[in-house]
Amino acid sequence: MPIPAPTLYPPFNITRLSHVEYGVTDLAASRAFYVDILGLQVTAENDNRIYLRAMEERGHHCIILRQSDSAGVSCLGFKLYDTPELDKAAAFFEGKGLPVEWIERPFMGKCFRTCDPWGVPLEFYVKMDRLPPIHQQYRLYNGVKPLRIDHFNMFSANVDEAIAFYGEMGFRVTEYTEDDESGRVWAAWMHRKGGVHDVAFTNGTGPRLHHTAFWVPTPLNIIDLLDLMATTGYVANIERGPGRHGISNAFFLYVRDPDGHRIEIYCSDYQTCDADLEPIKWSLTDPQRQTLWGAPAPRSWFEEGSLFDGAEIRDSDLKAQPIIAP
Amino acid sequence: MPIPAPTLYPPFNITRLSHVEYGVTDLAASRAFYVDILGLQVTAENDNRIYLRAMEERGHHCIILRQSDSAGVSCLGFKLYDTPELDKAAAFFEGKGLPVEWIERPFMGKCFRTCDPWGVPLEFYVKMDRLPPIHQQYRLYNGVKPLRIDHFNMFSANVDEAIAFYGEMGFRVTEYTEDDESGRVWAAWMHRKGGVHDVAFTNGTGPRLHHTAFWVPTPLNIIDLLDLMATTGYVANIERGPGRHGISNAFFLYVRDPDGHRIEIYCSDYQTCDADLEPIKWSLTDPQRQTLWGAPAPRSWFEEGSLFDGAEIRDSDLKAQPIIAP
Amino acid sequence: MPIPAPTLYPPFNITRLSHVEYGVTDLAASRAFYVDILGLQVTAENDNRIYLRAMEERGHHCIILRQSDSAGVSCLGFKLYDTPELDKAAAFFEGKGLPVEWIERPFMGKCFRTCDPWGVPLEFYVKMDRLPPIHQQYRLYNGVKPLRIDHFNMFSANVDEAIAFYGEMGFRVTEYTEDDESGRVWAAWMHRKGGVHDVAFTNGTGPRLHHTAFWVPTPLNIIDLLDLMATTGYVANIERGPGRHGISNAFFLYVRDPDGHRIEIYCSDYQTCDADLEPIKWSLTDPQRQTLWGAPAPRSWFEEGSLFDGAEIRDSDLKAQPIIAP
Amino acid sequence: MPIPAPTLYPPFNITRLSHVEYGVTDLAASRAFYVDILGLQVTAENDNRIYLRAMEERGHHCIILRQSDSAGVSCLGFKLYDTPELDKAAAFFEGKGLPVEWIERPFMGKCFRTCDPWGVPLEFYVKMDRLPPIHQQYRLYNGVKPLRIDHFNMFSANVDEAIAFYGEMGFRVTEYTEDDESGRVWAAWMHRKGGVHDVAFTNGTGPRLHHTAFWVPTPLNIIDLLDLMATTGYVANIERGPGRHGISNAFFLYVRDPDGHRIEIYCSDYQTCDADLEPIKWSLTDPQRQTLWGAPAPRSWFEEGSLFDGAEIRDSDLKAQPIIAP
Repeated sequence: MPIPAPTLYPPFNITRLSHVEYGVTDLAASRAFYVDILGLQVTAENDNRIYLRAMEERGHHCIILRQSDSAGVSCLGFKLYDTPELDKAAAFFEGKGLPVEWIERPFMGKCFRTCDPWGVPLEFYVKMDRLPPIHQQYRLYNGVKPLRIDHFNMFSANVDEAIAFYGEMGFRVTEYTEDDESGRVWAAWMHRKGGVHDVAFTNGTGPRLHHTAFWVPTPLNIIDLLDLMATTGYVANIERGPGRHGISNAFFLYVRDPDGHRIEIYCSDYQTCDADLEPIKWSLTDPQRQTLWGAPAPRSWFEEGSLFDGAEIRDSDLKAQPIIAP
Repeated sequence: MPIPAPTLYPPFNITRLSHVEYGVTDLAASRAFYVDILGLQVTAENDNRIYLRAMEERGHHCIILRQSDSAGVSCLGFKLYDTPELDKAAAFFEGKGLPVEWIERPFMGKCFRTCDPWGVPLEFYVKMDRLPPIHQQYRLYNGVKPLRIDHFNMFSANVDEAIAFYGEMGFRVTEYTEDDESGRVWAAWMHRKGGVHDVAFTNGTGPRLHHTAFWVPTPLNIIDLLDLMATTGYVANIERGPGRHGISNAFFLYVRDPDGHRIEIYCSDYQTCDADLEPIKWSLTDPQRQTLWGAPAPRSWFEEGSLFDGAEIRDSDLKAQPIIAP
Repeated sequence: MPIPAPTLYPPFNITRLSHVEYGVTDLAASRAFYVDILGLQVTAENDNRIYLRAMEERGHHCIILRQSDSAGVSCLGFKLYDTPELDKAAAFFEGKGLPVEWIERPFMGKCFRTCDPWGVPLEFYVKMDRLPPIHQQYRLYNGVKPLRIDHFNMFSANVDEAIAFYGEMGFRVTEYTEDDESGRVWAAWMHRKGGVHDVAFTNGTGPRLHHTAFWVPTPLNIIDLLDLMATTGYVANIERGPGRHGISNAFFLYVRDPDGHRIEIYCSDYQTCDADLEPIKWSLTDPQRQTLWGAPAPRSWFEEGSLFDGAEIRDSDLKAQPIIAP
Repeated sequence: MPIPAPTLYPPFNITRLSHVEYGVTDLAASRAFYVDILGLQVTAENDNRIYLRAMEERGHHCIILRQSDSAGVSCLGFKLYDTPELDKAAAFFEGKGLPVEWIERPFMGKCFRTCDPWGVPLEFYVKMDRLPPIHQQYRLYNGVKPLRIDHFNMFSANVDEAIAFYGEMGFRVTEYTEDDESGRVWAAWMHRKGGVHDVAFTNGTGPRLHHTAFWVPTPLNIIDLLDLMATTGYVANIERGPGRHGISNAFFLYVRDPDGHRIEIYCSDYQTCDADLEPIKWSLTDPQRQTLWGAPAPRSWFEEGSLFDGAEIRDSDLKAQPIIAP
């Protein structure tokens, strides 16, 4: 069994994934997509950046859109449990020989920027500005009615190594795909907050961000989004779905933003907080792993992803391939 | 505009489509599919035939499964408004030089068998045994929770001619697809009962039955069916969907029974009872016609269908083709 | 059995209920309710009137809001099948000694105003301006996402007589409530268009309009409306529901507009087009008749209704009472 | 502000609520209710006890039904994070002068029984037998399709004291109701696992168990349960709902089992894992606190509850009362 035992007492305490900053090439076009179509709420904006939150979030933002010359991902943000964890986290990365830079970020308290061993830019903080709840202001619900950011999924050139590193930080594997031939892990889902994942890794040219996911109330919200996108000029931005993943059991839809950043809209995974939760193993050759209902994903879904600022990508040496739609 | 004006005063009064008899090669396997998976209710059965109804129907049956050496369709049944309509209907077919045979059918009163000009076997009646309502016996709901039979869709080698013949019988066109090049109709949806269709015709090798459709309460029932089929050995019987048709605006799923007979599960079309309802025209080159969300249908969906007993098939001379999934 | 046999060949052919004109005392307040909360679409408006349609309707309007000194109902409108039906309908009313006035109505062709024997103002027409379809313009869906007007429900001081009169016009009873003691009908549901009702009658001080109903896609739209009304200042306008009626099996919600006109939002009844459909009988003492789930309706629901312009009301002589919430 | 600051570093680490044991007076009747109506899965049973789990749970059971002469609650069970927590937990209770008894329980590892200061019997463990996942065996889904046990709600004669004690154990308040007059807390919701609650306390004669709650996928499953109960002889067991709580924003239904034990079925609360989550305060006089849509709860809901074995009850000295349905 290739999955390491979970780290029950990690060196620092991550509560959950928190936010992502996307470089976008046309801020107005991105605003239209994220606000008018997806239904995220603007919490601050200026000429260069738009800050957004989902409906049940009280932290100031879960996405930052930043006007940029080229599309990219500036950082993945994680919230720590309590103030002492910040220094512990910084010490962990320094101990790995990774750069730690204490930075000022609007709407956040003390915060440092670092990266994982493959160059994925990471940001850790404890306190972000807290906003009044809006989850019962039903007049504001719009688009797909996004409730909260749920997880990041990354292409990794070596998923076994990614699991080991993120596992050391306390992320616990809930489900994974094994390449039967090599016995190596082809993909893995890892959580901190008690759902199927805060982060996931998929074998491929990496590191790249495969997608950021948002949680919505029911499958009908996803159907509403499809109808809306299909009739407002976004039909080509619908990439895959609706469907149910075998892995995670989630009902899903994948869409692409105007720069091609992939967003998953999803609901219906399950509770994973038990420390002795047994990871579920899937075979790479099982088509129901990807889509319980049998339809394979399109090639773009396996091959395209967003570049992380400053990270060099390399091909995976694990050449095993899943079933791809013709 | 190639669509003839509706026949507001047809020679006889058809209330709605009513039932279909399928020849099936393994009655037990078909029973498992229609009863345990789709959730239709058995109202009578013997060694050779199983009669089924959907949850809100009070007529005795909407499907007959008949043990047969080969898969096929024995007849499409239609309910007439009142007793005098039977003779008027028979006279209509006789006037067209089509065979009219008065037959005895279990659970039905007076009834005749005929066929359309292309050999599709048709059955007309006024009275079928009426059963007590079960639509509020919620313990019986199962599978996809089918409420009622909704329509038949047929491959036709000449859709223009099919529209003309069925139009003369009082079926009114609600939506249709035109081949822009030839100006001919490639597909048409026609109704009697006030929904988008009781019968539909699609260009292709015909006559063959493309599918029989059942109406269900909400899209979530269709998602439930997908989950059920995917985990009970029927994943290969899922052919297309879920999706929303551009035409009819219906939320749909297509599945295949153990003999390959295609069943559509659907909900969400619209009311069409106005006599001056304007048919909606679609272009064959518009991919959103088939699937509002953009994904084309698989090749099998365009090419495979059920043979009608006794009908000879021929290729369509209209060679225009829609967009097909690669 | 107190229900008369259906009139299969009525003197004229009504296709369906069509529209209602409400007198409202604050046009702006009513606009906010019907447009921003219910989600109806404005098709025309001036200082005195607002015309609205639901999402799948192509006729110009289903509701007219008219600025008035007092709240009331100016007319209930019905669409006839074809032009010759207009004169036949007029002759029917004249033959009953009821007034027939040919009137000009914006957005409608030839039209006459009459009333039923109890003074309910009725309007009959064949052609109304037809508008382009908007049911696939999903950006426009709002509020409860109303698809179409579905039925009128009226208080009647003598339901047996109302059934007889409307039955003569071709409305067919689908379900009814009997007062076991007197053997009289306490309430009845009657249809033309193939659903459970176009019109319904409930015993009480009448004639008054109990409610106008709109059809929505699924129960979740009704839950969305409740959440919206509850958080936008309309919580006191929620009168009853959500629940499922025993009668009709509909999932329902009753709300009140700013003048107290009652609107039902509902989905999930069943197909009734068979001419031999057997009416379902309920006992007045069966609490599941009103609400399948057992909770009785509030007193206001049984007692309050909208006055018809020009109609004098009288108490019912059938004093039997259903179960009312304490 | 009467809510104490959260205990971020509690003396031992509770992962989540886990299970409840009910004394029931007719085991067969209870089995019918929990298995055939609610849809829980039997994982073990003998003449005296039935063990049940919900669909996404891998622990052996979340409810034990025990044949008993009188209805009652034998214990509330909680799962600890890791083995060392067991001794820490035992030490905590011993330090409070509360009894700690190490017991053998089928299907569980090391386990002790204790009680809170008011006599509520509590059970703590780390390991329970783990079962294979069934959440993708869709054939097994039945009744309301329960996914997992979600929380316990208890009547407490002094909610301020209950919050203080459970808060010391690391339960964090998410929402609470204040009696404006006395400034005391009338009800509070407290969590460990990242939802709105694992335990809640409501002012009243206590300690008694108000209800145990199960999480279901969507509001439509709750509507399905209502339809099922209403037509299988359980209409009188429907106590309150469906509705949306102001507090927690949950869509809810309350039903009573054959012994009157109250079960809540619910979905749609929100993520609470942030350590700096601000509790939401409600006023006891706000009717939308109970039901966002305005309808007050019935008297039984405020007054009736299940007795804990061995616990003496006393009246609350906080006499403030919420709005109750007439």
